[in-house]
Amino acid sequence: MTSLESDKILLAVTGWDPEVWQTEFAKSAPKRKLVLDSEADKNDVRYALVWKQRPGSLMNLPKLEVIFSLGAGVDHVFHDTQIPDVPIVRIVSPDLTMRMSEYVVWQVLDHHRLGLRYREQQKQRVWHEDRRQPAAHEVNVGILGLGVLGRDAAQKLRTLGFRVSGWSRRLQTIEGVTTHYGKDGLKDFLKDVDILVCLLPLTPDTKNILSMNIFAQLKPEGPLGAPVLINAGRGGLQNEADILAALDRGMLSAVTLDVFNKEPLPKDSPLWTHPQVIVTPHAAASSSPQALVPEIVAQIESYERGEPLKNIVDKAAQY
Amino acid sequence: MTSLESDKILLAVTGWDPEVWQTEFAKSAPKRKLVLDSEADKNDVRYALVWKQRPGSLMNLPKLEVIFSLGAGVDHVFHDTQIPDVPIVRIVSPDLTMRMSEYVVWQVLDHHRLGLRYREQQKQRVWHEDRRQPAAHEVNVGILGLGVLGRDAAQKLRTLGFRVSGWSRRLQTIEGVTTHYGKDGLKDFLKDVDILVCLLPLTPDTKNILSMNIFAQLKPEGPLGAPVLINAGRGGLQNEADILAALDRGMLSAVTLDVFNKEPLPKDSPLWTHPQVIVTPHAAASSSPQALVPEIVAQIESYERGEPLKNIVDKAAQY
Ligand SMILES: NC(=O)c1ccc[n+]([C@@H]2O[C@H](COP(=O)([O-])OP(=O)(O)OC[C@H]3O[C@@H](n4cnc5c(N)ncnc54)[C@H](OP(=O)(O)O)[C@@H]3O)[C@@H](O)[C@H]2O)c1
Ligand SMILES: NC(=O)c1ccc[n+]([C@@H]2O[C@H](COP(=O)([O-])OP(=O)(O)OC[C@H]3O[C@@H](n4cnc5c(N)ncnc54)[C@H](OP(=O)(O)O)[C@@H]3O)[C@@H](O)[C@H]2O)c1
Repeated sequence: MTSLESDKILLAVTGWDPEVWQTEFAKSAPKRKLVLDSEADKNDVRYALVWKQRPGSLMNLPKLEVIFSLGAGVDHVFHDTQIPDVPIVRIVSPDLTMRMSEYVVWQVLDHHRLGLRYREQQKQRVWHEDRRQPAAHEVNVGILGLGVLGRDAAQKLRTLGFRVSGWSRRLQTIEGVTTHYGKDGLKDFLKDVDILVCLLPLTPDTKNILSMNIFAQLKPEGPLGAPVLINAGRGGLQNEADILAALDRGMLSAVTLDVFNKEPLPKDSPLWTHPQVIVTPHAAASSSPQALVPEIVAQIESYERGEPLKNIVDKAAQY
Repeated sequence: MTSLESDKILLAVTGWDPEVWQTEFAKSAPKRKLVLDSEADKNDVRYALVWKQRPGSLMNLPKLEVIFSLGAGVDHVFHDTQIPDVPIVRIVSPDLTMRMSEYVVWQVLDHHRLGLRYREQQKQRVWHEDRRQPAAHEVNVGILGLGVLGRDAAQKLRTLGFRVSGWSRRLQTIEGVTTHYGKDGLKDFLKDVDILVCLLPLTPDTKNILSMNIFAQLKPEGPLGAPVLINAGRGGLQNEADILAALDRGMLSAVTLDVFNKEPLPKDSPLWTHPQVIVTPHAAASSSPQALVPEIVAQIESYERGEPLKNIVDKAAQY
């Protein structure tokens, strides 16, 4: 398992600038050869770093041992149906987790503290004397997905006084957080939720989960009028027509979306201009190559010392 | 010190609706008589609950023993120069503290996560590919005032990963927070600050402190371009012309103000429309009479059992 200087690392990314990754790799692992999909001499590729790789680009790599996803999610890996049978490792990074929790806390507070309303009042130069506002302990934040990101966000929201509940595939326990799991647990989870935060991975099981069926099961009234939705998982988790319909029917009072069915969000999407929708451009947890590359290099080095790989993806569950 | 049913409590508020306070008092202390400034038979008044009381309204109350401020701050008590020599007690309430920390964390995150920029991009339907963004640990939040509110906010900001420093009148120590104190410590405190949060009381010493002199000492560059100011203390702490000038000269990149020289903020104030200013209507920690009245009643009862009063104001320092 020792390193061979001739071993190559394939960087197979689309829609991303490869140069920043190349630069960071040159700093962190100056002796290793990083090659692009277009220029690879496939025979020597031992590791692949991928983000939405060109379908088929991982085949015919006889020496490939590990695929590293350059994101926390791996739906962009599985969009390619020709993947060799080697471990797929995803990113779990304190830097990325911190950033996602910043985003979740920011958006939960923005809805809880009536940001949309105060910004509208400011535009109208209206002071408005009614300053009633629920306390955090009167508001239940429900988190879909209690993985690395969901757990950290749950803890930080608790620190601020929110009631927090969560839902996952298998039972998870987190101190101070009410947890539910599986298809059977979804109904009970949803019925108490004032602010629904989605931090699920996009898999065949979770695709389109944020649809009318779910919105109809949320707590219909509550301290914020109607429930709020925040999706920072993946765009494929949400039915955008249903979100707009739920807003228009008052089933949702407001929505924050960081991810979309199509990215960049098309200019003609009504989400851009809906007064109750906050759009951010897939920026919830943009971890930097500066933070991530040293962590990937460290994984490669420990793997070459014979230590087991961490953060291996379950190929059956696709996350 | 036992309670006499004939003892009266004076409610002396201006600009506030007395009715909600009367209602809550009737619930929490049904046997006590609450009278308004206009209707008081002054001879029997033993306690006064005040918010911007009419100047002189606390004089000629021969049985007055304690003045309770209905806010955390007491500048609205001292605006009246005729105050009898009895203890003044202010509000220190977990409910109010939690709400203020929600506000501070919300606004710090809104600036840190480029809320003003993303909202502008949304308005223009611009996706914008540059998602670079400092991590919390690259940003120093400096808190002016390390009292009940400043300390709680400091701890919550630390949980989210920010570097936190603080300034107070006397030396305070808070784990993980760099502290400075007194006039001599101000310069050293300011020179590292990216986001300046003001949670000072308004006193003769702190009046107008948020002025050009201070802004000029903040860290001139930094992860957010130029420093950010958040004032949730009192409007009298800030020089509004200086704030606008500092924004226009790029000495401040953005500002959040919850409090103003004149409240409600006059319609013609340029603060309403400045693109880098976030205005909220003195709503940072609007604690509810429902939460506060039982705490005041409990203080009265423990005082009548002979226990010492808590949260007594230092009349020399005026906070
Ligand atoms: N917007 C952004 O910038 C951004 C950045 C980073 C990540 N993300 C997204 O965030 C997602 C979550 O990341 P993570 O690191 O927290 O993932 P993770 O550790 O794998 O956690 C995934 C969680 O989702 C639950 N889950 C998966 N399938 C489920 C199902 N069918 N029903 C119920 N629960 C299910 C899992 O349940 P178990 O606990 O039972 O396994 C787990 O709790 C990523 O997949 C990525 O798509 C977005
Ligand atoms: N916007 C709102 O809705 C809202 C709501 C509630 C409160 N407030 C404001 O928040 C203020 C702070 O509340 P609090 O409960 O935290 O007050 P506190 O416990 O009395 O703390 C005041 C802090 O300010 C420091 N300080 C006072 N004068 C100073 C000076 N001349 N130089 C340096 N530091 C000085 C004190 O220093 P020491 O530690 O040395 O004493 C202390 O750390 C209140 O007075 C009120 O005006 C606003």
